[in-house]
Formats: sequence, C-alpha cells, structure tokens
Amino acid sequence: MPRILFTCAYDGAPYLGWQSQRGGHTVQDIVETAMARVLHAPLRIAAAGRTDAGVHAAAQRFHADIPESCRMTAQNWRDALNAHLPASIRIMAAQSVPDDFHARFSATGKRYDYLIWRGLVLPPFLAGRAWHLPHAFDAALLAEALHVYVGTHDFRRFAAKRGNEPDPAPADFYLRTIYGAEVAAEQGGELLRLSFHGNGFMYRMVRLLVGTAHQVARGRMSLAELGSHLTELDAPKARYCAPADGLYLQAVEYEDGLI
Amino acid sequence: MPRILFTCAYDGAPYLGWQSQRGGHTVQDIVETAMARVLHAPLRIAAAGRTDAGVHAAAQRFHADIPESCRMTAQNWRDALNAHLPASIRIMAAQSVPDDFHARFSATGKRYDYLIWRGLVLPPFLAGRAWHLPHAFDAALLAEALHVYVGTHDFRRFAAKRGNEPDPAPADFYLRTIYGAEVAAEQGGELLRLSFHGNGFMYRMVRLLVGTAHQVARGRMSLAELGSHLTELDAPKARYCAPADGLYLQAVEYEDGLI
Repeated sequence: MPRILFTCAYDGAPYLGWQSQRGGHTVQDIVETAMARVLHAPLRIAAAGRTDAGVHAAAQRFHADIPESCRMTAQNWRDALNAHLPASIRIMAAQSVPDDFHARFSATGKRYDYLIWRGLVLPPFLAGRAWHLPHAFDAALLAEALHVYVGTHDFRRFAAKRGNEPDPAPADFYLRTIYGAEVAAEQGGELLRLSFHGNGFMYRMVRLLVGTAHQVARGRMSLAELGSHLTELDAPKARYCAPADGLYLQAVEYEDGLI
Repeated sequence: MPRILFTCAYDGAPYLGWQSQRGGHTVQDIVETAMARVLHAPLRIAAAGRTDAGVHAAAQRFHADIPESCRMTAQNWRDALNAHLPASIRIMAAQSVPDDFHARFSATGKRYDYLIWRGLVLPPFLAGRAWHLPHAFDAALLAEALHVYVGTHDFRRFAAKRGNEPDPAPADFYLRTIYGAEVAAEQGGELLRLSFHGNGFMYRMVRLLVGTAHQVARGRMSLAELGSHLTELDAPKARYCAPADGLYLQAVEYEDGLI
C-alpha cells in the first residue's frame, strides 16, 4: 500500500496531547476521524512522537498506508483532510514515501522551541502559547545553563517516568545527544525563544531542561549543580518542569535523500 | 475625579467588537463588568475608537474617571482588572492623566497593521488572526497601491455607512491624512504585514483600503482606477472589504507631553 508522510501543525491548547486515548479529544483522534471520513474506512497513523496536553507543533510528522483502491494523490489528501479538520489542526504538507520509511523510526533528529514572555503582562496573542515569567531572571545565565546540556549525556534525570521503561534499562537507554541549545531575544527582548536540536528527546525532557535552566537563571541553582544532573545519575530526577504552553515541536529530521 | 488612561490588548476573534451592545459579549462590556467587580459600582469607559467584530488590538486606549473614594493606583487598577478579565483581554498598562485628557478627542494619530498569509495552508497559530490569500498576487503592486493612499484625501469612498453621518456632511467630514502605508514581508515572505499610519480612520476604512489594494495586486484593478477612488467622489463606495481577522489596532498617538 502506498505510504504518505504528512506534516501537521497544531495549536495544542485545546487538546489532550497527540496520542490517541479513550474519550478522544487528542490531535491523533481528530486526525484519524478526519481520515476515516475521507476514506470511508478506519485508518491508523504513526507519528514521529507524542506531544503532551497543551504542547504545540509547527511540524509534527506522521505516516499512513493508503489502500491501493484509493486514487488520491498526497496533495489530494492534504486538501481533503484540511477540509475536515478544525482550523487549530492543519496538514501543512503531504508527500509519498517508500514503504520502509517510518515517521518515527526513520527520524534522525528533532527540533523544539520553547517560548518565554518576560513582560509584566502576557499579551492575549500569547495566551496558552508561552510561559509567562514576569519576575526578574538573568537571560545570559539561562543561555549558559542551556549550553551545559549540549553534547552526549545520560539524561535519565531529565526523563519523566512513562511507566513502560525496561527494568533494568540498557546502559544507553537514556543517552541522547543535544547538538545545540540557544536563546534568542525577540520583540524588543520581552520574548525569549529557546531552541533545542538533538537526536531525540524523552518524555517531558525539554520542559525539564527549561524548568531546571530557569532555576539557574533566577539564581536558585548554580551552573555546577545543574551540570551534576548529567553526572550524578543516582540522584533524584529534575523537579522543575516548565509548563506545556511554551513548547513547540518545530521539526523532525530525516536522513538526506530518504524523503 | 482622577482620570486613568488604560492600554488594552485583545484577541478580537471571540468578541462582537469593542462597542457595548445589548446582549453583551463585546470587549467594552467585558471590561466594564470587570471594572464594576473591582469597584463594586458601575463605571463607564471611553475608548479611542471602536473596533469591529473579530478585529484585534495590541494597544486600544480607554479612560475612566475613578471615584475619589477609591484609593487604588493606576498600577493597582491594571492588576485588579487583569485578575477579572479573560486571557484574551489584557490591560497592558495604566497611567494617571489630566482631567481634560480624552482617550478619543485627544488622539492625534493611529496605527493599524493588517496581516496577510500567502502560504498554501494557514498555520493554526494564525487562525482568526490573518487574511488567508493562497492565490497568486503581486506584493510589489500591493505596496504601490498602498502608496497611492498616502497623503491628505477625501476618503468618503472608503468609509462604510454607520447611519449616523450628518446630512449634508461638512466639506472636510471625510478628509483624512495617511502619513504612511507600507508592506513588510515576514516569516520567509509568506506573511505580509501592511502598516497604516494616519491622523484618523473611518468605519471599515482600513479593511476597504486593504481589500481594494488587493484587487490591484491580483490584476483586477489598475492603479489609476484605485487612484480615482480619491478623486471621483460621486462614484459608488469601494466594494472590496478585507476580513476582520487580519486587522490590528496597533497604537493610538497623543500629543507629546500630554501623557
């Protein structure tokens, strides 16, 4: 069956996350319902990864295997799905991929952005779309803290438990490489955009990285203590989790030439 | 009574415009309800101008006269109102002004932005917040069309009837000066920001200016014909009104030193 890869953007605020669940109202449930309406038959989709309730995506990716009997092109699918989806969920692009391509297992990297509004009052246009931090903190120190994360580390202390982890976990189970983690100021410095680029991120990892770095930026944790989270692996997990509102899945990367 | 000037931002999508009306659900109604809750008494507010249903504001201005018995500072008022307002309406600032200052009559100029998304699919983050124009048009021609508007002209053909116009209208009734009207490309050229700066704008005027300029940009009207809208004043009013979604009241200007 022909496989199509979709690029999907969503405002996560009204949804209970990506992953399908009993009771519905997740992005996956709504997309699968739209696909079933177009195809007049159920169709399962496989995403690059889950996003939590309230987390946004500029470019989530998922694939689906379309029955041979369906003559629609990838572009037909994009337009038909958008006609059945709410404005808060959009198929930005669709393309044919080889049968052995997998939205999740073929991924080689991901990019996440995290938005922080430093101004005294959160503008209505950022409601549900940024972390509001009106109290003073040091943005330069925030950038230094993020820099500590860059490299290949065991991030077990930055991985919230999902409950399905192997026990014992393989030695490299929590090993991830962060290629870059930077802070950029926008809108006169009141909006900070934190950008993360890595080969993979675990459950709640970006939000725990941001929340812990913020502790450093507000002077409640030293850079050395933050660094110890990557070396003293038996200590308790990171406790400071930034809210979902500010998090955006910006890109899923695949090997050059694969798609 | 001490007069306070408020700077108010709102996402206009869920509201029936600024102006109070029977049945409520306008921004003014919701702000006045919040003020009454803070003061435990009704309080009328006077805004710099109305905005239509669906139109947004980054910086609407309104003033209110606070009873002497109320000991709250302008900053207290800002915080108290925000505690009673939904996240889609925010008091960004508040300041004391002289008794003879008036949010509307003291205004010397206004700025409006109008957002157009040219991409094939409207991202969820711009739903209700931009005009989606996926079909080809010439952005350079759009900029030329806007340039025709700059200057002092009789804009009667760009003023929708409110029904309360004087008849006969004074000779200068429809005279306005546009200081600047420009187009800037953002987000890789897919988002166009049209900026208007003038001494005043009439009912639906910016949306009619944008809608008519778009006719030029898509090749359905010549620049000369657009220009004739400012000289052939007895011809019918402009017919092309851009949707409310893309319009933002960006600033109300007052004389230097007045506030």
